[in-house]
Amino acid sequence: MLTISQRGQEMPPSPIRKLVPYAEAAKKKGIKVYHLNIGQPDIETPLAIMDAVRHTAIKVLEYSHSAGNESYRRKLVQYYKKAGIDVNYDQILITTGGSEAILFGFFTCLNPGDEVIIPEPFYANYNGFACAAGVKVVPITSNIETAFALPPIDDFEKVITPKTKAIIICSPNNPTGYLYSRKEMEALKAICIKHSLYLFSDEAYREFCYDGEYVSAMHLEGLDQHVVLMDTISKRYSACGARLGALVTKNKAVYDSAMKFAQARLSPPGLAQIMGEAAIDLPDHYFDAPKAEYMARRDLLVQRLNAMPGVFCPKPGGAFYAMAKLPIDDADKFCQWLLESFSYKSQTVMLAPATGFYGTPGLGKDEVRLAYVLNLESIGAAMDCLEKALEEYPGKTALKLATASSKR
Amino acid sequence: MLTISQRGQEMPPSPIRKLVPYAEAAKKKGIKVYHLNIGQPDIETPLAIMDAVRHTAIKVLEYSHSAGNESYRRKLVQYYKKAGIDVNYDQILITTGGSEAILFGFFTCLNPGDEVIIPEPFYANYNGFACAAGVKVVPITSNIETAFALPPIDDFEKVITPKTKAIIICSPNNPTGYLYSRKEMEALKAICIKHSLYLFSDEAYREFCYDGEYVSAMHLEGLDQHVVLMDTISKRYSACGARLGALVTKNKAVYDSAMKFAQARLSPPGLAQIMGEAAIDLPDHYFDAPKAEYMARRDLLVQRLNAMPGVFCPKPGGAFYAMAKLPIDDADKFCQWLLESFSYKSQTVMLAPATGFYGTPGLGKDEVRLAYVLNLESIGAAMDCLEKALEEYPGKTALKLATASSKR
Repeated sequence: MLTISQRGQEMPPSPIRKLVPYAEAAKKKGIKVYHLNIGQPDIETPLAIMDAVRHTAIKVLEYSHSAGNESYRRKLVQYYKKAGIDVNYDQILITTGGSEAILFGFFTCLNPGDEVIIPEPFYANYNGFACAAGVKVVPITSNIETAFALPPIDDFEKVITPKTKAIIICSPNNPTGYLYSRKEMEALKAICIKHSLYLFSDEAYREFCYDGEYVSAMHLEGLDQHVVLMDTISKRYSACGARLGALVTKNKAVYDSAMKFAQARLSPPGLAQIMGEAAIDLPDHYFDAPKAEYMARRDLLVQRLNAMPGVFCPKPGGAFYAMAKLPIDDADKFCQWLLESFSYKSQTVMLAPATGFYGTPGLGKDEVRLAYVLNLESIGAAMDCLEKALEEYPGKTALKLATASSKR
Repeated sequence: MLTISQRGQEMPPSPIRKLVPYAEAAKKKGIKVYHLNIGQPDIETPLAIMDAVRHTAIKVLEYSHSAGNESYRRKLVQYYKKAGIDVNYDQILITTGGSEAILFGFFTCLNPGDEVIIPEPFYANYNGFACAAGVKVVPITSNIETAFALPPIDDFEKVITPKTKAIIICSPNNPTGYLYSRKEMEALKAICIKHSLYLFSDEAYREFCYDGEYVSAMHLEGLDQHVVLMDTISKRYSACGARLGALVTKNKAVYDSAMKFAQARLSPPGLAQIMGEAAIDLPDHYFDAPKAEYMARRDLLVQRLNAMPGVFCPKPGGAFYAMAKLPIDDADKFCQWLLESFSYKSQTVMLAPATGFYGTPGLGKDEVRLAYVLNLESIGAAMDCLEKALEEYPGKTALKLATASSKR
């Protein structure tokens, strides 16, 4: 009998995309859906980098070097220097999105059955890449009450086994927006050195830090051999569809091994590399406008959420996500209900249930992630919907309702 | 201690790319190198599809659907219909190059430790994807004497075990150029049904069939649940750098499982999909010119090779590769020597040693693969170099030399 592989069966479907059919049905009914469910920014891709593609003189769109065009990698050295990261072009491997960098990291550093520790809630697709590579994800829990700060190092110590090979962090974080402090980064460094662990650092949101100092894993002294930086231009330049990322490491053995996986797939996308190269020439002040825009959205979103009875949303320090605790029974049900059974002035809002971001079953049932990737007016309208929805939702929780009543 | 994973250590480096440093050194000495070593065509990417990108009105380069834009998939249905392949748009999953289609096929259909049978010589990167997925490649040998026809079905029967889950074929073939006949395809069908095996069919060179009928795995009746077609626009439209392919299957369980791997990596490249969509609108006669060009090149290449003393090159029926048996001791040494120690009129030729295309150690030591991706004049000059080189090469074999002398 023809069978599907074990990993094919165990592979988790996207927790964010499973609600899409309900959103489509709502739209067919004429309801406007505000998409706060997915990290797809509405910020325009910089004209200069789209124009670089429009004006390309390419006659034959050839394979690039498997590590990416040398010209692009050499320009990225300048980019990283500005971020305080000192690397050579031959320590940068261009990948197909940050996704491929994560997959290459798993392939290269972990055997099937090995374990990777990830503070939860975490980017749900780490689960998928771990499943593809046969790696076991070991979550340790961070809490909304502390704004999702790094869990105590003792929590890491408790779950470390001989099979633990790496820790994955993402700062500023998706889904929480939390920005790790230097102290937290130093604590991670200490434990990586103590237990000989790789530190996989997903720095997709580097440019979007609003409060506090940005600390890259590559800023940590003495950790060079441990750090595998996973990067992408998706969020930085609002170019998610380009599929262009990078794996950056000073560990030559890791680089050389990842390079073999890169050779098998021949090369990263060619047109995207033209965009990536043009992006390095954007003026330094390019990020000022999107950053100011995201901060204004964050401030509005957080203020509106916390003004709703029974809702708690810690202010995120970076990225463009916020996690909120809602007075509801079940975030998955609630998010589906928003699309299926609710509307306010013919509008509703699509959110991401937080359950998909936790590795521990049962956690996140009263939390949702909101991506502030829409303009202020839309965020305002979406918050109007959410406020109304929380009044009407049949599964609102009694305890929270009490709090809510007392706030009123 | 930080370690590299087992698969990271075992992952084979690209057998084609390992000679690159010698080619670079030759160029630095002022020697012109004719690249017959790699399947990177010199044919121009059709202007219409490059222009589709140049004229794009995209403001935000967003993620596409994880299976690729629906508009592109719907247009591909027309393309496949013209090739006699009847599929729906929801049986097509757009991938990042044919490479990702192969990887998704392995992930979805085979467990670590499972076996895949591949007639050798075969596309070397199958080894890499198998290693990444923990799958064991079981080669069965085809021979240059029969122009690399399908090995007897008995040879398949002998190596089938309970762990055998799939057969991979590539027709027209890379590296041999062999085009499987309907009879051979029917034989493959029978064994796949008898032993419940998937048939992974790599059809990257579909448009380039010169002699005989093209038979797709999807033309075989009653094999729908077994066939996973792996496709790419790389060679078809001379757009290798686009990184755009497809996994096509009527097996819904396979499609749904592959889709989960696709969701984890979010989406295939966006700009490439614009190219792919524009390509469907190319006039039917588009392929006439490149096909005629490749045929002329093939004819010249094969004629020149077979005119050389001690050389045998079966005429390939498709693709743009030829395998040749040379009167040499060691193809790897010879190909390196061509770059390092030889030149004729300040020119030399770069070939791919066939050893990298065989799974059985020791095979292919007197064979090379030649990609006829250069124009006729260059192929002529490259053959002049090769002819001269075979006269001078210190490792020429005595037996073959005797034959050569007698031919003279």
